[in-house]
Amino acid sequence: MSELYYPGLENVIASETRISFLDVDNEEIVLRGYDLIELAHKVTYLDIVFLLLNGNLPNEEQYKGLEQDLKREAGLPKETIQLLRLLPKNTHLMDVLRTGISALAGEETEIDDRSWAANYRKSIRLLAKVPQIVADSFRAVNNQDPIEPRQDLSYSANFMYMITGQVPTETEAKIFDQSLIVYSEHEMPNSTFTARVIASTQADIIGALTGAVASLKGTLHGGANEAVMHMLLEAGAVDKMEPLILGKLSRKERIMGFGHRVYMKKPDPRALLMKEALQPLATAKGQEHLYQMCLIGEEVMYREKGLHPNLDYYAAPVYYLLGIPIDLFTPVFLAARTIGVCAHVIEQHENNRLFRPRVLYSGPRNLHP
Amino acid sequence: MSELYYPGLENVIASETRISFLDVDNEEIVLRGYDLIELAHKVTYLDIVFLLLNGNLPNEEQYKGLEQDLKREAGLPKETIQLLRLLPKNTHLMDVLRTGISALAGEETEIDDRSWAANYRKSIRLLAKVPQIVADSFRAVNNQDPIEPRQDLSYSANFMYMITGQVPTETEAKIFDQSLIVYSEHEMPNSTFTARVIASTQADIIGALTGAVASLKGTLHGGANEAVMHMLLEAGAVDKMEPLILGKLSRKERIMGFGHRVYMKKPDPRALLMKEALQPLATAKGQEHLYQMCLIGEEVMYREKGLHPNLDYYAAPVYYLLGIPIDLFTPVFLAARTIGVCAHVIEQHENNRLFRPRVLYSGPRNLHP
Ligand SMILES: CC(C)(COP(=O)(O)OP(=O)(O)OC[C@H]1O[C@@H](n2cnc3c(N)ncnc32)[C@H](O)[C@@H]1OP(=O)(O)O)[C@@H](O)C(=O)NCCC(=O)NCCS
Ligand SMILES: CC(C)(COP(=O)(O)OP(=O)(O)OC[C@H]1O[C@@H](n2cnc3c(N)ncnc32)[C@H](O)[C@@H]1OP(=O)(O)O)[C@@H](O)C(=O)NCCC(=O)NCCS
Repeated sequence: MSELYYPGLENVIASETRISFLDVDNEEIVLRGYDLIELAHKVTYLDIVFLLLNGNLPNEEQYKGLEQDLKREAGLPKETIQLLRLLPKNTHLMDVLRTGISALAGEETEIDDRSWAANYRKSIRLLAKVPQIVADSFRAVNNQDPIEPRQDLSYSANFMYMITGQVPTETEAKIFDQSLIVYSEHEMPNSTFTARVIASTQADIIGALTGAVASLKGTLHGGANEAVMHMLLEAGAVDKMEPLILGKLSRKERIMGFGHRVYMKKPDPRALLMKEALQPLATAKGQEHLYQMCLIGEEVMYREKGLHPNLDYYAAPVYYLLGIPIDLFTPVFLAARTIGVCAHVIEQHENNRLFRPRVLYSGPRNLHP
Repeated sequence: MSELYYPGLENVIASETRISFLDVDNEEIVLRGYDLIELAHKVTYLDIVFLLLNGNLPNEEQYKGLEQDLKREAGLPKETIQLLRLLPKNTHLMDVLRTGISALAGEETEIDDRSWAANYRKSIRLLAKVPQIVADSFRAVNNQDPIEPRQDLSYSANFMYMITGQVPTETEAKIFDQSLIVYSEHEMPNSTFTARVIASTQADIIGALTGAVASLKGTLHGGANEAVMHMLLEAGAVDKMEPLILGKLSRKERIMGFGHRVYMKKPDPRALLMKEALQPLATAKGQEHLYQMCLIGEEVMYREKGLHPNLDYYAAPVYYLLGIPIDLFTPVFLAARTIGVCAHVIEQHENNRLFRPRVLYSGPRNLHP
């Protein structure tokens, strides 16, 4: 049996899927047959939502139908708003989000129906409500009243509005929408895997998403985008970036935002897209030094460790310049990824086998009390 | 790569561990070197807690120290009590429990400290509080006030008391304690695996346990014990058991409480222990027919499918006769398993590698928007 041990399940296939695939050799992130980066240039986040749920891009009518469904399901029960305000004010926002999403289960009338149609409807409701929980989590711990969603704004613009209280410019909303696209789905990262493992017991989609939130909090995963921003702010100036990274490396610390189990020695195409968005944004906001610092970090890490930046490295300064509070970077990632997780849970429930691996036992034997 | 695909990760080794191991050939469940069934006959649940956390059974002084630590950490923050009462009254109790445990993160001052010592202290706090959340979840959805823990009772007797409002007899407390032991730890079931996967991102122990609750809810896993009880009550009489099961089998339904990925064609030793406890308990409560029904179900399933009962099959009627509400069967399982999950999270954090498997992509390619 022990020949089947691959620490971290590296290269082990966990599931057969029709949702997505990292084709590293061809540097393509395949989403339902499409190239994610091409999609990010040509369509919007709601197209991706439709694509991931249905397997094809929507026509105009289908797009409008989805938009209406999401608007109809927008708005949080007042109990959820109260509940977020009961949590201690120093609660980590991913912990607030996890609790808030978990609590939605009681409001969900179809909670234990695992049919495709019920899972689809539940996914729509989650997509409508999760951004609002994200936005309101920050306001709850800062003693602010919630901001009601605005029906006249697009999905992405409304999400930004609920976070910042400001209606974003068209350019800002476009960049944010692109970031949601590149965060939307990415094959079998830890959080998606967590959700599929949970769903395989026949547990419900909200439970599976709750587990994904727990996973995404970790700094080796979603938590990296916040850690990157703290590092950039700690450096603070272009000439401080290299010594900061070298110092961390000499202390054997990991540099957040670099490396990836699957890409390893190739760049993450999503990082390049966010890097392209960062340059003009930094110039427009008069913060070009942020872009310069990122370039230096990238050079140093390639020189010293042969590692490329991942998405979180360039998403972090983009979110910062869009006015998103740092503590919300990982929650926003989770909101964007909700659709990917839902698609995987639906697929798991359609063709299920319980996940139940084994262990390699290296402890004592034959003891008696 | 595709030769590494084992649906449900059957027989794939996920982790090296010194905690436990199912030695099916020798019909032994190994816990830190000891035989679980022998332990269940000779020691108490708190001995198991100490053993799983420390690797050795406690001496008298250590046992008392653990008991005192747990008593000192007992009691829920009033916000947690309020929060449980904000959830809709029809919320599934596993969903209430998941939300309640998730919410503890904000009260935890060492939440993001993953050192062994901090994880140990957090485990103790969880062991002190989870039973109370379990007990109070039922009371919250039934508009009842919480029952405060009683410091003069043993851990198991107090747990029963908080659930039923009655101090159990010595025999009842002993059987319940044994059930907690056999539920405490069991190698790498789905919920423990979920917790380790989550913890491997460097996420915290409360998040990992929250994911385990989500997993355990599923009927292919912990949810089976409640399903078994509903089946027994549906049959209602000794002569109705066989036709009920045959009817379900003819409709290709799964019979809950039977089968196990690892044991397969051998009996689950834990089920035998609970079966031994059930017989005198059923007689004492004047409900011998429950025991008879179980025997018939066991015979029918072996004859028809060659399947043996698992722990949940015999734990269900035992809990029923102990006066535990059916909706609390899976939450009680989770409370008992909290120690196993904590031990695994601690081990994962001590020697970590991110879980990040791959997929077998069978969807379309080369599409363009
Ligand atoms: C993502 C990540 C966990 C994947 O790593 P993995 O496949 O599990 O590989 P390992 O953790 O075993 O690392 C392999 C080697 O590269 C090094 N390495 C990997 N990422 C590194 C980083 N960001 N900084 C410094 N060293 C790194 C490791 O120290 C290790 O070196 P060693 O063999 O000398 O010990 C890892 O690259 C990482 O920790 N990155 C930082 C966190 C991050 O940005 N996460 C977001 C991912 S989208
Ligand atoms: C626990 C369990 C999920 C493990 O199963 P697994 O290793 O994933 O095996 P599979 O689900 O692939 O089942 C293998 C075969 O046995 C059958 N089988 C397994 N358990 C069965 C049950 N309880 N009732 C009826 N048939 C069952 C399956 O239908 C399948 O038959 P098939 O090959 O003709 O389709 C499974 O036995 C089960 O569903 N049991 C009932 C739920 C339960 O009691 N869970 C608590 C476990 S502690």
